Amino acid sequence: MSTYKPSIPKGTRDFLPEQYSKRKYIFNTIERVFKRYGFKPIETPAMELLSTLTGKYGDEGDKLIFKILNSGDFLQSVPTTTYEKRDNISFIPHICEKALRYDLTVPFARFVVQHYNELSFPFKRYQIQPVWRADRPQKGRYREFYQCDIDVIGSNSLLNEAELIKITDDIFTHLGIDVIIKINNRKILAGIAEVCGIGDKLIALTTALDKLDKQGWDMIEQELLSKEIPEDAVIKIRELLVLKDSITDMLDAVSEFVKTSETGRTGIAETKEILKYAKLLGIKNHIEFDMSLARGLNYYTGAILEVKARTLEMGSISGGGRYDDLTGIFGLNNMSGVGISYGADRIYDVMESLNLFPETVSSFTHVLICHLDQYTLCYCLPLLQALHQHNIAAEIYPDTVKMKKQLSYADKNCIKYVVIAGSEEMSKNVFTLKDMSTSEQWLLSLDGVIEKVRS
Amino acid sequence: MSTYKPSIPKGTRDFLPEQYSKRKYIFNTIERVFKRYGFKPIETPAMELLSTLTGKYGDEGDKLIFKILNSGDFLQSVPTTTYEKRDNISFIPHICEKALRYDLTVPFARFVVQHYNELSFPFKRYQIQPVWRADRPQKGRYREFYQCDIDVIGSNSLLNEAELIKITDDIFTHLGIDVIIKINNRKILAGIAEVCGIGDKLIALTTALDKLDKQGWDMIEQELLSKEIPEDAVIKIRELLVLKDSITDMLDAVSEFVKTSETGRTGIAETKEILKYAKLLGIKNHIEFDMSLARGLNYYTGAILEVKARTLEMGSISGGGRYDDLTGIFGLNNMSGVGISYGADRIYDVMESLNLFPETVSSFTHVLICHLDQYTLCYCLPLLQALHQHNIAAEIYPDTVKMKKQLSYADKNCIKYVVIAGSEEMSKNVFTLKDMSTSEQWLLSLDGVIEKVRS
Repeated sequence: MSTYKPSIPKGTRDFLPEQYSKRKYIFNTIERVFKRYGFKPIETPAMELLSTLTGKYGDEGDKLIFKILNSGDFLQSVPTTTYEKRDNISFIPHICEKALRYDLTVPFARFVVQHYNELSFPFKRYQIQPVWRADRPQKGRYREFYQCDIDVIGSNSLLNEAELIKITDDIFTHLGIDVIIKINNRKILAGIAEVCGIGDKLIALTTALDKLDKQGWDMIEQELLSKEIPEDAVIKIRELLVLKDSITDMLDAVSEFVKTSETGRTGIAETKEILKYAKLLGIKNHIEFDMSLARGLNYYTGAILEVKARTLEMGSISGGGRYDDLTGIFGLNNMSGVGISYGADRIYDVMESLNLFPETVSSFTHVLICHLDQYTLCYCLPLLQALHQHNIAAEIYPDTVKMKKQLSYADKNCIKYVVIAGSEEMSKNVFTLKDMSTSEQWLLSLDGVIEKVRS
Repeated sequence: MSTYKPSIPKGTRDFLPEQYSKRKYIFNTIERVFKRYGFKPIETPAMELLSTLTGKYGDEGDKLIFKILNSGDFLQSVPTTTYEKRDNISFIPHICEKALRYDLTVPFARFVVQHYNELSFPFKRYQIQPVWRADRPQKGRYREFYQCDIDVIGSNSLLNEAELIKITDDIFTHLGIDVIIKINNRKILAGIAEVCGIGDKLIALTTALDKLDKQGWDMIEQELLSKEIPEDAVIKIRELLVLKDSITDMLDAVSEFVKTSETGRTGIAETKEILKYAKLLGIKNHIEFDMSLARGLNYYTGAILEVKARTLEMGSISGGGRYDDLTGIFGLNNMSGVGISYGADRIYDVMESLNLFPETVSSFTHVLICHLDQYTLCYCLPLLQALHQHNIAAEIYPDTVKMKKQLSYADKNCIKYVVIAGSEEMSKNVFTLKDMSTSEQWLLSLDGVIEKVRS
């Protein structure tokens, strides 16, 4: 073997069989729940037109989109003046018309508008696909990662928000992760801003609040003051944020605070209605009303949701909310939607840390058939066929090599049973079956082997 | 709605719920069989380093690789002389270090070399992922499509070839597609070339034979003559190709023809051994020995396999073979491998044409709960919860709208049962359940509804 070692682009990963199987377990669990609630699957292409994505994620986001170089004579389309200036930003639209999707939300909005006449509304979709971002890679942050999204589009009912909470509750109950489901409402934040006399500074407020978890109040206070939010407003906001009562008491306190703001009152009423439905649907995990929850994305207009693992310090593993005009960017107005996204990679990390994957997830072959020579090989093939017909994962060691090597293969691959047949077994029309974990062994007929390994 | 209509890159596709579910049915069937035979799943990133892919698919292939533009100041890395020349080919390596994978074979070879110490050999892997090619889009040919590959690497045993035939047989039996599995061997082709005295023109011969199906013999004859293959050799090859006997008779005839070539004799012996194993494993579909089967890829060194649907004019839906030195390109020699690839998109087209998808594949929600007002909505939520607990796909129409609209939603979404509850049902603690296909209806308790819709 030469010393040259091939590699893959930074921030991307290969998945070996065990990792693949654990990830698949997460996807399957999530998908099973999605389907049970009547969500329907769609898939969109990895590549979107660059024009579909540009301008949807802010200037910083635009830089993180992976662009695909046009095929053929790509330089020909660059106007001479642009070529002479040698400027990256103005070069891009001439040499790239496609890009890798950055999230599943914008492609979904594009999908709804493009297939409007083929869909019936309210449309409940789920989508589990990778997305790509040219972010600086770091622990837990990758350049290729999976999102698992559900959205209901074309319905204003707050029952949808409650159902997203219930789905979240079901998914994490199935996965065995104890979570806190945090809820807030953009309208409550707008109400607070209005009452504090900083209604025009809502985005500055939400951007700052979003960092509370990571940076602590002192930093946030500095940021709010630097954004010219008056000190008395900052003090009032702080008083609300330190409330740590029951969810009902907190809602009452905030309700009292925003009573002069119509938007604020609507936000409180919406939150109460969502919680009422959630209660009727029977939520097992803890729901928390968190006024600091703002989520950076400015397209949210109503409820905001975020989920964290309870027993582990880690960022959110899921988040979403209500948006009133997402398809507007593609020309379709008045389509209110609400959705939530589950981050499979972070969920994987949580489950690994807490050792939550069932052992059976990464078990592969159940029976290995070993052979001594051409004769025993042929003698064993009907057994192999019978095992497969009974849906038992079984393989025969393909090469005629020493028994020690074949048994070592069984060992390395954690195979529970091995079958061995020599001339004696052949003459009696039986097989030796051995349990690799206990070293017990039996002399059995073909049917006897099947029965034993199935039990 | 504005007149602007968003779109997606040519050659790519959105999958709506029904299409998604049918595709998923194919993937699941294939994956279940792979697992039963002891193959283990891996995944590799969508992006590989461009240097990993370049030069592996020939000059034409290199042009069809989708390249990813480097992030940031990509023009800075272009040397001034290259920039001044304005030449596409020499530009690319300076502005693109990543590319989308073109197939699953080269990434797999890279994977084996990179993770050599983490794997145990023989290593049997499967991989089901999309690949991207900048081919000219046409019917049945897309720029993003899925491959489903299995390979055994690190084993010389011909049992592997037989097992690939058996897996193919199982997959298409499960899918309900009647297929012909064609087999040939590169060594037989080499033997024929050797006997005809054109041993140095093997690639010209295989390249021409590969087109026999599409172009017919006359065209092939012209091509062979134009490649300076002598007329007497062309006549001999034709005589072999027109043989249409039983598989045994054909092998005997070819065996006689190549008896003076050691390579040819080996090819015949290998084919007979593979067929012996295949027989012991119990193949249901028709196996055909096809001397014209050559498959363009020059990395094959032994058996070649190809699968076609029997009742339909369509290209091959699966193909593969033995390659003795695939990992050699990444510095790891002496790792013989054998593999086969199933084309999910073509299999989909075959199944659609022959109407082979089970009806249940694209059934989604089983029960729709309709409601009249806030009271009946809340009354029905515990029923929704109970349905989900019993793993029944159920949803409640989220908005309080006219019953007609709710029933029309059930209709459009092919939902079998609807539940309706008004004040009378509420007072008796029951629900009206209606079968949408027969219009039958029943007055049932919560448990009664569950029992009825489960049966």
